[in-house]
Amino acid sequence: MAREQVFNFSAGPSVLPLPALERAKRDLLDYGGCGMSVMEMSHRSPMFQEIFDSTKAKLKAALSVPDTHEILFLQGGATLQFAAIPMNLLEGGAADYAVTGNFSGKAAKEARKYGTVNIAADTSDTGHDRIPRQDELRLSADAKYFYYCANNTIYGTEWQYVPETKAPPVCDMSSDILSKPVDVSRYGLIYAGAQKNMAPAGLTVVIVDRSLLGRELPVTPEIMSYQTLVKTDSMLNTPPCWCIYMLGLVLDWLKEQGGVQGMERIKRERAAKVYDYLDNSALFTAHARPGSRSDMNVTFRTGSAELDAEFVKGAAARGLVNVKGHRIAGGMRASLYNAMPMEGVDALIAYMKEFEVQHHV
Amino acid sequence: MAREQVFNFSAGPSVLPLPALERAKRDLLDYGGCGMSVMEMSHRSPMFQEIFDSTKAKLKAALSVPDTHEILFLQGGATLQFAAIPMNLLEGGAADYAVTGNFSGKAAKEARKYGTVNIAADTSDTGHDRIPRQDELRLSADAKYFYYCANNTIYGTEWQYVPETKAPPVCDMSSDILSKPVDVSRYGLIYAGAQKNMAPAGLTVVIVDRSLLGRELPVTPEIMSYQTLVKTDSMLNTPPCWCIYMLGLVLDWLKEQGGVQGMERIKRERAAKVYDYLDNSALFTAHARPGSRSDMNVTFRTGSAELDAEFVKGAAARGLVNVKGHRIAGGMRASLYNAMPMEGVDALIAYMKEFEVQHHV
Repeated sequence: MAREQVFNFSAGPSVLPLPALERAKRDLLDYGGCGMSVMEMSHRSPMFQEIFDSTKAKLKAALSVPDTHEILFLQGGATLQFAAIPMNLLEGGAADYAVTGNFSGKAAKEARKYGTVNIAADTSDTGHDRIPRQDELRLSADAKYFYYCANNTIYGTEWQYVPETKAPPVCDMSSDILSKPVDVSRYGLIYAGAQKNMAPAGLTVVIVDRSLLGRELPVTPEIMSYQTLVKTDSMLNTPPCWCIYMLGLVLDWLKEQGGVQGMERIKRERAAKVYDYLDNSALFTAHARPGSRSDMNVTFRTGSAELDAEFVKGAAARGLVNVKGHRIAGGMRASLYNAMPMEGVDALIAYMKEFEVQHHV
Repeated sequence: MAREQVFNFSAGPSVLPLPALERAKRDLLDYGGCGMSVMEMSHRSPMFQEIFDSTKAKLKAALSVPDTHEILFLQGGATLQFAAIPMNLLEGGAADYAVTGNFSGKAAKEARKYGTVNIAADTSDTGHDRIPRQDELRLSADAKYFYYCANNTIYGTEWQYVPETKAPPVCDMSSDILSKPVDVSRYGLIYAGAQKNMAPAGLTVVIVDRSLLGRELPVTPEIMSYQTLVKTDSMLNTPPCWCIYMLGLVLDWLKEQGGVQGMERIKRERAAKVYDYLDNSALFTAHARPGSRSDMNVTFRTGSAELDAEFVKGAAARGLVNVKGHRIAGGMRASLYNAMPMEGVDALIAYMKEFEVQHHV
């Protein structure tokens, strides 16, 4: 056994593929016999440039990114993009935001500093337990872009369709990128923090339509200008080299698993097992409504805060760690990212069954 | 031998202490028997919080940071701070900038987006081969802060004194932090990219006087507000967890070496050896003037571009890698950061002597 066996259901940072970690460990002191760790390489060295270029090529292939779009490897997390997006794309005008959870709400709030925000949808009235239908979206005529968050990590909901909008969609895919095929050509911009399905925390991937470049507000920091970042191939300054390297290793593993098509098949199977159990449980209920449910983050509860706490504690004692829900949603949350083995899902359901037998009155 | 022996003179990212890398390798798959890599830990988990808190405490101790100042662990590199500093501290007013190299020049240019920049000194007339004297600084009465870069990585110069200014000094210490004791209480703000003396690329340390908080311009992205970052203890969003962990391991090693006092003794010895050789060489000349010379980055040249190239090539063949100067300065540069062993310095000088015998006419 490579290590103590636990199943890590953390919503992010989260479980990484063991083969990628093993490869990183093997080469940690001495990458390819060069006498240096990847952590010690100049980002301008041919060796690191090769890692950078090949990682970008692997991501382009994995997501079938068309030549109209540029891939950027950045820092700062989704939260920096909440500002970078309106600074780069809003031109002081208006954009439509669908607020379906915590992070899209924060993005909308931040955008108001740089222009006008129209709320195209807001599902807070029902505790963000659903994704709005296409015909519910209030789209404005002059929107520079339509913003949404593909998967709501905290509430466990996920868009099952790509919204039809006149304005280019801008999408936060932090928690479901690489879990299924995506038609990148339909998007103005896609971005994702790496720490769920891609790499350790510290890397943010942005995929942007080149035709949207060059519209920065004058107050935009140079390091946040997409145009500058494209021109310098994400190296206006030193990039987060280790995280980029790790992403390359994760993408090698992803390819061996059948790529995003393979991931989609597996994630459906994983999530269906848990939701099927929840829908037939007399103790547990799923938070998200059918049709809006996330395959990445399954949120559920017993209805009793004490029982929830007992469940979380008992799970941890069995090596099922980080199943506690986010503090603003409560209950439980099982994050089933790409690297979660099916054994982890089976172990979780087995424990839920056992817990239900013990506690159902 | 733990790995192929090379001496890595890269200006950053750069050599890290081998014991820190070995520790990271040992625990890569399974930190403390928890069954997870540090790369997989939720940043909100008690395990990671302990790593975060202890790293911060170690840095506070290593630099004797007074309680008046807050330590932040951020992303985005020095380049993001070029904008964050004026956004947070300029209040639309004026600041004094000493331009002694490439990065202070870039910082001054960026600050002009947010207020008035007075150039307190500019050493470009002599190829940035010196640091201005205190009496040369043109200080303005209304400056919100005085900005300088403690060590100029590209040109190999380093401030040997802390400027006396009415306005609080704001200092980029990216390439000499942790190499000597610093009286943090004299500074309004100190910041440093980690990838030279601290950790892998992807972490930026900011140390800010609490009395300067709360002056952000309205256009400041929330993730760049020092006040918000202090309130959330650098966790408004997911921090660069792996780099923070690595910084903790580097600080353990630093302590064993006698802390910043020990580092100062060693760096003086390292640099003195190289400068003594250069000052007595008939072939090589040092770029920086005596009194302004950096102990971290020694810049030198033969006077012939062909000979410089031959030197760099021959050095690499002997395992003395990354001694090529920055493209805008030319010549050679040997970066002698904390983790550079004395054997590396001796091997470099031995090769310089040999090269001089072969090529001096």
